[in-house]
This record gives sequence, structure tokens and C-alpha cells, in this order.
Amino acid sequence: MKLFGMSGSGNCYKPQLLMSQLGMDFEWVELDLRAGASRTADFLAMNPNGKVPLLEIEPGTTLPESNAILWYLAEGTPFLPEDRLERARVLQWMFFEQYSHEPNIATVRFWIAFLGNPESHQQKIAECRPRGYAALDVMEGELARRSYFAGDRYSIADIALYAYTHVAHEGGFELDRYPAINDWLQRVREQPGHVPMATGDRA
Amino acid sequence: MKLFGMSGSGNCYKPQLLMSQLGMDFEWVELDLRAGASRTADFLAMNPNGKVPLLEIEPGTTLPESNAILWYLAEGTPFLPEDRLERARVLQWMFFEQYSHEPNIATVRFWIAFLGNPESHQQKIAECRPRGYAALDVMEGELARRSYFAGDRYSIADIALYAYTHVAHEGGFELDRYPAINDWLQRVREQPGHVPMATGDRA
Repeated sequence: MKLFGMSGSGNCYKPQLLMSQLGMDFEWVELDLRAGASRTADFLAMNPNGKVPLLEIEPGTTLPESNAILWYLAEGTPFLPEDRLERARVLQWMFFEQYSHEPNIATVRFWIAFLGNPESHQQKIAECRPRGYAALDVMEGELARRSYFAGDRYSIADIALYAYTHVAHEGGFELDRYPAINDWLQRVREQPGHVPMATGDRA
Repeated sequence: MKLFGMSGSGNCYKPQLLMSQLGMDFEWVELDLRAGASRTADFLAMNPNGKVPLLEIEPGTTLPESNAILWYLAEGTPFLPEDRLERARVLQWMFFEQYSHEPNIATVRFWIAFLGNPESHQQKIAECRPRGYAALDVMEGELARRSYFAGDRYSIADIALYAYTHVAHEGGFELDRYPAINDWLQRVREQPGHVPMATGDRA
């Protein structure tokens, strides 16, 4: 399989991490989104929504959306529980991640650490900051009661939330105030086959 | 089961529609979010993220996130395909809905049709408008090639995207320019057991 992604992107890191932990062979195809690589005619033919990551399952069959890719790859593996309610909990946290977490935490990191001109995004950062902390508060509350987000064991829900939480400090979020999150980050890092996020040549 | 929701909310309409089509008995518990009903201590104990819809499966067991609720309810029914790739396609479109569609289309409708003071959200509306149309463009391209979003038949992916697309005009989106979307909206409305969105006493 081919995984089209951009180094440093948490969304792209999710399938990179899972495929590594599943011991799968895959080819990473690096795209520079800032240079428009996801808006070319060739790429839009594969994903009309113009986003990475994109998984090429076989030539002509592609799957976008990081969390849909995680689900597809994890089916039938220990990374996705079998119980109906636990599976719904995995999705609960993956939708939480894409709606309440990523748009407030990943975006701020992008403006500050990637674009390097936080001044021009000051108003947006001010809007996202409290929402990002609200998402971290929800995570902290959950992790004070359980070790993992679904089914009492490491699953793709943890991978989805780890992706941008472990680099939230790059967007100026103070993780020191979240002991349960920090313990969980450590548990995730200690999982067999864990690999760090590809960071490429980001300046 | 109990479904905590707010009339007029597309996210709450999703499980309302599916449960009706599944012929399930459920109790609708109306919450007025504008009056803070999702931020009370009682509600936050059920959903620390303070959002509706919330499904009470049984007392003490609740599930938030509209699309996670759809998946939980649809498991083992004709509304969710059995094929691995088709199931991933359902998730692809549900994550597209929550990340690229809802934040740009539902929000504009909320500011214009619910809060009734679009002037104070003019800049945000101007930001969301092109992104909302971009999401509709992606849907139009897909629906020009297929009748439904996953598995060649009506599924919870269609329910998820119908919820805010069929009322996008209330946020000023011109749906007339999308013939394939309009044909699909009609196909969705013609599904057995279809019910309209609860609109309550919205002025």
C-alpha cells in the first residue's frame, strides 16, 4: 500500500503509527501541502477533497480521512475492540478528535510552528485556545478514570488522540497541568512497535 | 432508549431519523442549548463534552457524538454495509461531514437562522461560505457518479450528510446549482420510514 502524507502532520502520523505497529509494509509518499501538492489534478482525481493522509489500497482504490483509514486497517486486529459498545466508544473519541480537538489544537500548532507567523493568526489563536483547553479538560477527566479511551486497552482511539496531543505544546498548550494525559502519553509511547512521528525536513 | 437533543439541530436529527427508520421506540428529551441546558452539572455528568445529541442506551450508559450513535444503532442492519471497504467509505463520508461540511454549513445556518444576528458573525460567515461550497462541490462530484455515498445503497453516510445539506439554504447556500445533490436529497426523502426533522417551536 501507499500512504500519501506530509511529515509533521498528526493526521498523517496516525496511519503511519498504526501500520508500523501492525508490521505492515507500506510506501510513504511525501507531499508538500504548502507547495500545493494536494491540489494538483492528479491528486484531486484520487481525493477530490484535496487532503492528506490518503491511503492507496491498490492502484485505483484510495481511502481518505485519517480516522476512516485507521478503522479500515484495524478491523480484525487487537487495535479495534469487538464489542459493539466499545467499538462505538472508539468512534465517539475519534469524532471528538476531529470535531472538538483537532480544529482547535492542530490548527494553532500549524499557525505557530509551521507557518511561523502567529501574529497574523492572533485572533483565531485566541478563539481556538480556550476550545483546545476544553478538549484537553475532557480528555483529562476521562483519563483520570481509565487507562485508555475505549475497551480498557490501547486502540485506534488512542492513536487518533495521541497524534496531536503529544505535540500540543508546539502550539503553546501547557500540558504540564494535565497529569492523567501525561501518564497516558507515556503509556502510548511504551506500546510495542511505537514509532515517532515522521518530521521530515521541517525547519 | 432516551435521545437528548434539540429540535432544529441536524446532528440531533440524524439519530432521530435512523431510529424512526429502524422502527425503534425512543423517548426524545428536548434540551434548549441556548438556555445552557447542555452545561448543567447533571448533563455534564452524562457528557463531559456538553454536546447533544446524547443517546442513553440504559440508565448510566450514554453515548455522545451523532455519527458514533448512528454507527452503534446501525450495526447489523441494512443501514450499514458489511463489506470492509464499504464500511470504511461510510466512515470516510461521516468524518468528511464532521470536519469539512458541518463546521462550515451548519454553523452559518445557526448564525443566520437561529441566532438571527448574522451581522455580528459576518467575518466568520465570509470564511465559512467558500469552504461550505467546497464541501458541496465534493458531494456533487461524488453524486454525479453514484446514487448513494457508500455501498450503492442508502446508509448512515447518507443520513449524516442529509442532516445539514437539506437545510443548507437556511444558511444562504444556493442548492439550485447542485443538480446531483438535489436528486440525492429527493432519493433520501423517498426512503421508507423517512421523517422530517423535528423543528420544535423555533421562531
